[in-house]
Amino acid sequence: MNFNLNYDNVAESYLFAEVANRVAKYQKAHPDKKVLKLGIGDVTLPLVPAVISALHSAVDEMSRAETFKGYGPYEGYAFLRESIAGYYKKMGVTLNADKEIFVSDGAKSDLGNILDIFSDDNVVLVPDPVYPVYVDTNVMAGRKVIYADATEKNGFLPMPDYKVDADIIYICSPNNPTGAAYTKAQLKEWVDYANSKNAVILYDAAYECFVSDDNLARSIFQIKGAETCAIEFCSLSKIAGFTGTRCGYTVIPAALERKGFNAGKAWLRRQSTKFNGVPYIVQKGAAAVFSEEGMTEIRQNLSYYARNAKLISECLDELGVWYTGGKNSPYVWLKCPDGMKSWEFFDYLLENAQVVGTPGAGFGKNGEGYFRLTAFGSEQVTKEAVQRIKSLLKK
Amino acid sequence: MNFNLNYDNVAESYLFAEVANRVAKYQKAHPDKKVLKLGIGDVTLPLVPAVISALHSAVDEMSRAETFKGYGPYEGYAFLRESIAGYYKKMGVTLNADKEIFVSDGAKSDLGNILDIFSDDNVVLVPDPVYPVYVDTNVMAGRKVIYADATEKNGFLPMPDYKVDADIIYICSPNNPTGAAYTKAQLKEWVDYANSKNAVILYDAAYECFVSDDNLARSIFQIKGAETCAIEFCSLSKIAGFTGTRCGYTVIPAALERKGFNAGKAWLRRQSTKFNGVPYIVQKGAAAVFSEEGMTEIRQNLSYYARNAKLISECLDELGVWYTGGKNSPYVWLKCPDGMKSWEFFDYLLENAQVVGTPGAGFGKNGEGYFRLTAFGSEQVTKEAVQRIKSLLKK
Repeated sequence: MNFNLNYDNVAESYLFAEVANRVAKYQKAHPDKKVLKLGIGDVTLPLVPAVISALHSAVDEMSRAETFKGYGPYEGYAFLRESIAGYYKKMGVTLNADKEIFVSDGAKSDLGNILDIFSDDNVVLVPDPVYPVYVDTNVMAGRKVIYADATEKNGFLPMPDYKVDADIIYICSPNNPTGAAYTKAQLKEWVDYANSKNAVILYDAAYECFVSDDNLARSIFQIKGAETCAIEFCSLSKIAGFTGTRCGYTVIPAALERKGFNAGKAWLRRQSTKFNGVPYIVQKGAAAVFSEEGMTEIRQNLSYYARNAKLISECLDELGVWYTGGKNSPYVWLKCPDGMKSWEFFDYLLENAQVVGTPGAGFGKNGEGYFRLTAFGSEQVTKEAVQRIKSLLKK
Repeated sequence: MNFNLNYDNVAESYLFAEVANRVAKYQKAHPDKKVLKLGIGDVTLPLVPAVISALHSAVDEMSRAETFKGYGPYEGYAFLRESIAGYYKKMGVTLNADKEIFVSDGAKSDLGNILDIFSDDNVVLVPDPVYPVYVDTNVMAGRKVIYADATEKNGFLPMPDYKVDADIIYICSPNNPTGAAYTKAQLKEWVDYANSKNAVILYDAAYECFVSDDNLARSIFQIKGAETCAIEFCSLSKIAGFTGTRCGYTVIPAALERKGFNAGKAWLRRQSTKFNGVPYIVQKGAAAVFSEEGMTEIRQNLSYYARNAKLISECLDELGVWYTGGKNSPYVWLKCPDGMKSWEFFDYLLENAQVVGTPGAGFGKNGEGYFRLTAFGSEQVTKEAVQRIKSLLKK
């Protein structure tokens, strides 16, 4: 028996471990200091009442033989797929809930598992800096990974280069870690490029719910031509705080096929063979997110995080620090002041303001000299952290 | 971009669709007849009170910021891994809950996803008849699949053949679809074979909870030597009715490695890259299964299904029909009377007794002439079906 030795080529990421390590060390040396964390990518607000109520009622259904649910549809219950289709309808995208929406336990699972339906000889294009999962999942399968440079010059939004031949293209907008978001016009250029190269775009829309500017895309299917070249991944993690409740969905247009090989049909085959659906209870909770009551409650949570992001970006505006994100994204990606390197600024901020963020260098070579702050903390912590950053950097 | 054309080689299974089709046709022609289904592999009893109560209380935790849970550990919460280790302890197997137990959304997902850590050039040995997922997941990756014949002669329990070189060996005991279960002594032969061939056994223990005979294995880790050649997959689907609630676990011994490549570490890498854990709510419900209260309640459910299995097997004993399973398994695998073929007997039973089962031919060539009945129906339906079978076949 041979193991898959491609696993030996996956780079170990010490980013968050090293962050935790340095914070622990500092805290041990300064037990009296209160450290404020603006580094986390996890949500902090609890599930909204409409979701909680739906979860309780689904649990009750599981307690009685007459309403008990066993194996469900691999692609998710129709009630949830239809709710998701309704959500897309409001942003002007018409989807066939029966054939184009696939419910799963999260965007991360699907982003990894979708690669099953693609040949290992495809060339993969990812931005740098990047969410490491895009790279690692492909290295595990032995695929060649090439990079598109995201830099201050292009606002951390690389555009297609027709001299580069790519087969699988990852786009995350609004972006993790940079918070930068493509306009619809920019995304059209990527769609045209993909169609001309016979490529496929894997579009990570996990942060679409933070977009309020109409010029920015919330779904790649708002772009003409995407139906023949794109797959979209989305999640309830950020919109509804489902990071520990686990539900997401993938949209594969029926028109996405090559030489009779249909992507959606292959994905359903993959899921029906290696997956048994999302818990019924969770699907009921997820459907409540898209109800009128749920959406009203959720908008309050999103506004809460948006206010935190605004606090951070206004502080940077005042200090004259260059950054992306913060406006249509929970992430703020700033240029370290005084030419500091990412880890240098991490230590500087920890030691002098007791504020923790994430060094951009941990996301790729173009992240060096940059730093990520997130809006997912509490309002109180964010306010205090912003105050401290202001005092420190004004000096 | 190229799709993974191995998907074109996956055989379409029409088994359950064809069963549903024939039943619908019969029912349409005979609307007055009451059709009894003993074909289903899904459970019918609701979740037990201890689990329901734990689920409700976890939902409540998700409603308050102080007890809300975001991202959890990829391998599952420690409280659940420790509960599982306690369950194994009672069958004499000592596991390291921190390093050897990996919680997932079900055995089917893990049985498919585990293949990521193995090279595509491995030769895969599966029994025939077989649970189709073992074959399909490997065909999707382009692996060579060979078969071990399970027949009446070997009691549908094939033993190792040292002339055959296999790298990845699938064993499901008690077996789906045949209900046959290996003794510990028989399993020892497979473990010795695997170790001598440098192979790995993927052991599907989804039905272990139905084993009451001490000579039969409940876990492959009850067998000496398995720690260097086996991975075990188990699920709460059958023991606790979690088919629609989704929780399972995989056991990878720390000692399972080749040339420094450690299987457990690779699996954790796989899961942390392509998975984000099981819902906190579900994990709380799962832990309640292993509590004293939960186990007491669950034993009643298992006894209920075991009584159904006994009703079916006693009927076949009385009729002198050859079968496997029924005693330490929810499945009864019978030889079709009068030399009938599987589908022939299906039609005969449907038309003359209005009882539905599953034609063995749908599970592989050695299934031809055999038929599967399951104990997962209600007691009332099972009793009536058994009565009808008895009357029909006595004639």
